[in-house]
Amino acid sequence: MSANEPTGLWLVGARGSVATTAVTGLLALRAGLTAPTGCVTEREPFTRLGLPSWENLVVGGHDVVCTPLDKRAEQLAESGLIPPRVLAATTTGLQAADTEIRDGYHPATHTGSQAEAAEHLTSDITSFRERHGLARVVVVNVSSTEPPVPHVPEHDSLSALETALADPTRTVLPPSSLNAYAALRAGCPFVDFTPSPGMRLPALHELAVAEGLPYAGSDGKTGETLLRTVLAPMFTARALRVRSWAGTNLLGGGDGANLADPTQAKGKLDSKARGLAALLGEGVTAPLHIDNVPDLGEQKTAWDHVSFEGFLGARMSLQLTWNGLDSALAAPLVLDLARLTAAAHAAGESGPLGALAFFFKDPIGSDEHRFAEQTTMLTEWAESLGERRA
Amino acid sequence: MSANEPTGLWLVGARGSVATTAVTGLLALRAGLTAPTGCVTEREPFTRLGLPSWENLVVGGHDVVCTPLDKRAEQLAESGLIPPRVLAATTTGLQAADTEIRDGYHPATHTGSQAEAAEHLTSDITSFRERHGLARVVVVNVSSTEPPVPHVPEHDSLSALETALADPTRTVLPPSSLNAYAALRAGCPFVDFTPSPGMRLPALHELAVAEGLPYAGSDGKTGETLLRTVLAPMFTARALRVRSWAGTNLLGGGDGANLADPTQAKGKLDSKARGLAALLGEGVTAPLHIDNVPDLGEQKTAWDHVSFEGFLGARMSLQLTWNGLDSALAAPLVLDLARLTAAAHAAGESGPLGALAFFFKDPIGSDEHRFAEQTTMLTEWAESLGERRA
Amino acid sequence: MSANEPTGLWLVGARGSVATTAVTGLLALRAGLTAPTGCVTEREPFTRLGLPSWENLVVGGHDVVCTPLDKRAEQLAESGLIPPRVLAATTTGLQAADTEIRDGYHPATHTGSQAEAAEHLTSDITSFRERHGLARVVVVNVSSTEPPVPHVPEHDSLSALETALADPTRTVLPPSSLNAYAALRAGCPFVDFTPSPGMRLPALHELAVAEGLPYAGSDGKTGETLLRTVLAPMFTARALRVRSWAGTNLLGGGDGANLADPTQAKGKLDSKARGLAALLGEGVTAPLHIDNVPDLGEQKTAWDHVSFEGFLGARMSLQLTWNGLDSALAAPLVLDLARLTAAAHAAGESGPLGALAFFFKDPIGSDEHRFAEQTTMLTEWAESLGERRA
Amino acid sequence: MSANEPTGLWLVGARGSVATTAVTGLLALRAGLTAPTGCVTEREPFTRLGLPSWENLVVGGHDVVCTPLDKRAEQLAESGLIPPRVLAATTTGLQAADTEIRDGYHPATHTGSQAEAAEHLTSDITSFRERHGLARVVVVNVSSTEPPVPHVPEHDSLSALETALADPTRTVLPPSSLNAYAALRAGCPFVDFTPSPGMRLPALHELAVAEGLPYAGSDGKTGETLLRTVLAPMFTARALRVRSWAGTNLLGGGDGANLADPTQAKGKLDSKARGLAALLGEGVTAPLHIDNVPDLGEQKTAWDHVSFEGFLGARMSLQLTWNGLDSALAAPLVLDLARLTAAAHAAGESGPLGALAFFFKDPIGSDEHRFAEQTTMLTEWAESLGERRA
Repeated sequence: MSANEPTGLWLVGARGSVATTAVTGLLALRAGLTAPTGCVTEREPFTRLGLPSWENLVVGGHDVVCTPLDKRAEQLAESGLIPPRVLAATTTGLQAADTEIRDGYHPATHTGSQAEAAEHLTSDITSFRERHGLARVVVVNVSSTEPPVPHVPEHDSLSALETALADPTRTVLPPSSLNAYAALRAGCPFVDFTPSPGMRLPALHELAVAEGLPYAGSDGKTGETLLRTVLAPMFTARALRVRSWAGTNLLGGGDGANLADPTQAKGKLDSKARGLAALLGEGVTAPLHIDNVPDLGEQKTAWDHVSFEGFLGARMSLQLTWNGLDSALAAPLVLDLARLTAAAHAAGESGPLGALAFFFKDPIGSDEHRFAEQTTMLTEWAESLGERRA
Repeated sequence: MSANEPTGLWLVGARGSVATTAVTGLLALRAGLTAPTGCVTEREPFTRLGLPSWENLVVGGHDVVCTPLDKRAEQLAESGLIPPRVLAATTTGLQAADTEIRDGYHPATHTGSQAEAAEHLTSDITSFRERHGLARVVVVNVSSTEPPVPHVPEHDSLSALETALADPTRTVLPPSSLNAYAALRAGCPFVDFTPSPGMRLPALHELAVAEGLPYAGSDGKTGETLLRTVLAPMFTARALRVRSWAGTNLLGGGDGANLADPTQAKGKLDSKARGLAALLGEGVTAPLHIDNVPDLGEQKTAWDHVSFEGFLGARMSLQLTWNGLDSALAAPLVLDLARLTAAAHAAGESGPLGALAFFFKDPIGSDEHRFAEQTTMLTEWAESLGERRA
Repeated sequence: MSANEPTGLWLVGARGSVATTAVTGLLALRAGLTAPTGCVTEREPFTRLGLPSWENLVVGGHDVVCTPLDKRAEQLAESGLIPPRVLAATTTGLQAADTEIRDGYHPATHTGSQAEAAEHLTSDITSFRERHGLARVVVVNVSSTEPPVPHVPEHDSLSALETALADPTRTVLPPSSLNAYAALRAGCPFVDFTPSPGMRLPALHELAVAEGLPYAGSDGKTGETLLRTVLAPMFTARALRVRSWAGTNLLGGGDGANLADPTQAKGKLDSKARGLAALLGEGVTAPLHIDNVPDLGEQKTAWDHVSFEGFLGARMSLQLTWNGLDSALAAPLVLDLARLTAAAHAAGESGPLGALAFFFKDPIGSDEHRFAEQTTMLTEWAESLGERRA
Repeated sequence: MSANEPTGLWLVGARGSVATTAVTGLLALRAGLTAPTGCVTEREPFTRLGLPSWENLVVGGHDVVCTPLDKRAEQLAESGLIPPRVLAATTTGLQAADTEIRDGYHPATHTGSQAEAAEHLTSDITSFRERHGLARVVVVNVSSTEPPVPHVPEHDSLSALETALADPTRTVLPPSSLNAYAALRAGCPFVDFTPSPGMRLPALHELAVAEGLPYAGSDGKTGETLLRTVLAPMFTARALRVRSWAGTNLLGGGDGANLADPTQAKGKLDSKARGLAALLGEGVTAPLHIDNVPDLGEQKTAWDHVSFEGFLGARMSLQLTWNGLDSALAAPLVLDLARLTAAAHAAGESGPLGALAFFFKDPIGSDEHRFAEQTTMLTEWAESLGERRA
């Protein structure tokens, strides 16, 4: 048995920068217009495991924004993220994909109970699955980062949660979690590529396990944190003592505007800080900033300054400057996650997929932050999936 | 059975910067004056394996330079490498250690055959071993880098080599290789911390195997290359395409003066280039420079610029600036290598110790350059040694 | 007539890092132990202008801290700021200088009216002047940065201010301004090397002019801002359009702890922002952070990322990393300012010395932030002083 | 009288990257499609001086390459240097401009004496001037860098030179100098934007003065050297002692391939080194490299590491990373130089225009390397020109 069946990729935030890049790239890969650079599942051993082919991935999604995919792709082409020749060759495909995007949930525009909103979202997904005759649909959240959500008792129990959802006077779930709930109710695995609350509520875990559904997250690891999870283990392995690890992130685009707000950014900053403490232990001074620098557009520039101590107390330092195009780093990972989560679902896995920690800043279901160990975990898990299905 | 017996550490280049830092640090560790920062063998699981304790390590060596250890340590204290209070507390110990340093071999001052020179070196080591009642002596080369040596047929066969050594009109071996020969003839394992020819001649391998002696090398991995072997696998694991990896090294001290000479530097540059090609494949533009910048003193500053390609051909970059004190990075590794090689000898290993690739830019006996994999190899090998000896 | 007469340098914050470095350096310069690196007044044409010689500078000051100068200098030597041999040779001199330091004003420990406190401060200074037979005393504030002070009407008029000062229930002036008031009442010029309110109150300007006293400030320009005032005019002269100029400052020492508090840092951040806007106009995105990174000790590391636009909208960038020892940069400027302000006083100047903008992030009495123009202004002014006195 | 008359800009290397960017930009400026970012002569006071308007600049040139301007512009658009909408709007104009480009001189393809070659070049220029009714033509060399030329006696005297030029068996002048000779013989001012020998031969100076023609050069200052001439004076003004200034340049494009050859690069490296020594004096360690990194395309990345000493010998550093698009920096300066040199010619200046040092790494006719002073010199000279013509 193989997972290479018609498979849906349902994007929450389907008209955003990451989603648009992923869909454009998928169309370009199908047409042989581009190499699969950045796609982990196009490397050995993943190519041998019967993952869904590019042709077998069908895209749909939710968004609260109306700019159609082809217009968004034009903007990304202007900012250098999508090559003009790729844009020209995929415009028709993007227009077609846009017809599969439905209105997303936003608390400010919704009337009625959250349960009704969830039913609506669920039926959008099931209708998409049926319309295209898909073996399964993987829902991936790539919408804007939400602030952390205050804890309420209803988050701890599915039955209490569903009672609250039915109450039209309450907004018990943030959008990311309502989307996760709707996905699970549609029988779909859920992947959170953002640091939003998403699946991180016990009631949703309860539902996923009850429905036998796998899920994964959170917060795609694409730049500064990727470097940190690669470099921090080096200092440990060499018995060098890291004293401070300071970071500054300059972001343009919508992400910059969103994350320069300390409330919105809190989730992301917390997720980054947790990772560094897990890697190096407590006691490392680690100031971290996110600045909105609109003129950078889709580019993200991060500067890290690491101060460390060696033999006889010698003081040394390492500086890093990362110039990344965040959506170009994230988009292929979204395709990878759709393929791998589909395979996990096909193999009958349920609950958090800790083996996907490789992809995330703040992995659910794993305490492993060291990148090399994550790589090994991912590879071994994927091979075991392939064997189970074979 | 444990390797924690009186063990000699015989340093070739015993009055150089790395050796002086290692000896000062060893004295400070014995006296409890400093934490073992940078010593890998002070971490788990190495602490459980019965390696020689600091008290059981006895130091001697060869050098062609006359400045005694305590004077050299004073210079290093002035350049910030050794804390004044450590210098004060170790001066007597350094003076004592200096009495175990003998005149090294230099082709310009030696008269007679190289065989005679080797006998002299050998007898210095065996006399040291007997005088101190040592279970074994590990010889570690930390002298100045030599240029690559042209190949001659005598390098390929031990008997041909020994015939040539006996000829007083020939200088068939460079100093590093003559020191390796003398060490093996004294029944001692040999470790090459430099990129010099050292053990890299088939005739010497033949001798090591014949004598049942382990050896290791070459070129201690302390800075820029360490980073490269950590970061390059990240690009590969994420399917990102590295296009160029340019490097500049600014070095002060004697190392800078030596390596700014392209002939002398060739070995080091070749060793670095081999590593990068092994990690990323051919086709990566990788210019690399070493500049002599005397005012930097013991500090080494390296700048690396990595240009890479992601999804849809997106162009991104990573820059690194490393400010290291090379001797502070190298010295604890010299102590680690002495301990681990002693344990390998005690366990009866012979030939190249590929599991020590973790320590080297250009590992002998291993093609593995990825740092995480090297860390795993080292740990597993050391644990197996411990088990074998237990 | 020359200003090379016995001259007092009265330091507010006399036991701080900058003051200790300045006094140690002054002693070392007198003894010929060090070159006057970093002393602007040791260059042409300043050496020809009859400024007070090192021998003619006598140091005293106020502080609220009790650690004596020689102990503070020991700490600075440990952190690499003062060479051990200089420390050894100046200890006696530092002990002597410490006897001229009096208890400073602190609102938390003072009882009685601020007028009484000011009288006390004034009499400390006048007694110092008389005891040493000084032609004049220049008071320089190098104490910790204070937050901006809320405006009250009493700050606008000297008579209203003095009424409020006499009221024992009020604390109308922050410490820096009370010190400035006391200095002026003692007939002394005042220089503010910090961004604290200091002289920036109309009532104090009124007093300075009434007394015929010059003053200068504020916020010594020693690192990141120095670079900005040098580089920003380059972009302007070349008609390149700066889009954003982001900055991060990592500070150890007491300064880091103080300035990581956003309230305390506000004055400094505001002063930096004013400078950039003056140089490049409005519309440049310029996020700026100060982080407390204690392990950096006396070192200050600043990273600036400048994004700019060229012909046909081409996007380019410049990054800067500055590793400075702030006190080593500030201390010689404190000596320079004492000499130059003494000369201005000798020449009969009063009010703000705009020609000293060269030294300050937020110059009083000048709108000129361009470093090259400031250099010219300083040189021409100093030459004119020399001529007037000649 | 104003210099705003129909004026020719004759480019040697007219189909290269700098020339193509300059011509495309000129067309875009005329059409109002782009702001004159990077054009110094569009700033005050230059806008008041009656320089030739964009409409009055007519372009022609020589090249040994056949790729027409519009194709070259397409390549530059692909590498991000020319915006797609500008390319679309200027294609027709570029095709028209290309009809004014004539075959350039190359020693490998030319037969006959160099005098004949020069006559041919001269007549191309005079025919262009007559055909378009131009008041004057400024010839600007933007072709590939040539290696330094060995000195021969014929370079020192015009009559000896012309005798040698007439000898069909000799190649006494490198191409840049033959182009300069031809330009002067056509009665045209000559500007050398490259470090090639060009006008730097006494015989050509003799000719320029005899013909009453101004000339300028050499080696446009667009990146790393620009920064150096801005920053070095800061260290001097602050009495800080620069110990070393190391530089690495990563270049793609044809320039990278050309300059990675040490012979070709010698002129450029020498020119840079002369500048640094002029700014900081002798005794500064200043290693400098140019590396060919083809994947960088039109981008040029330079890293500079400056090590300096402050008060009490404190060791500090500054690092710079410059990411520039060299042609986008050079092209507007070429237009500026054409305008300013035309004005100098109109005003009757002859010989080297030292006041244009602002534009050059290795200014002819001036020893001034400090950028701020160069800015002042340029401004004052241009204003005086305007007054003389008024």
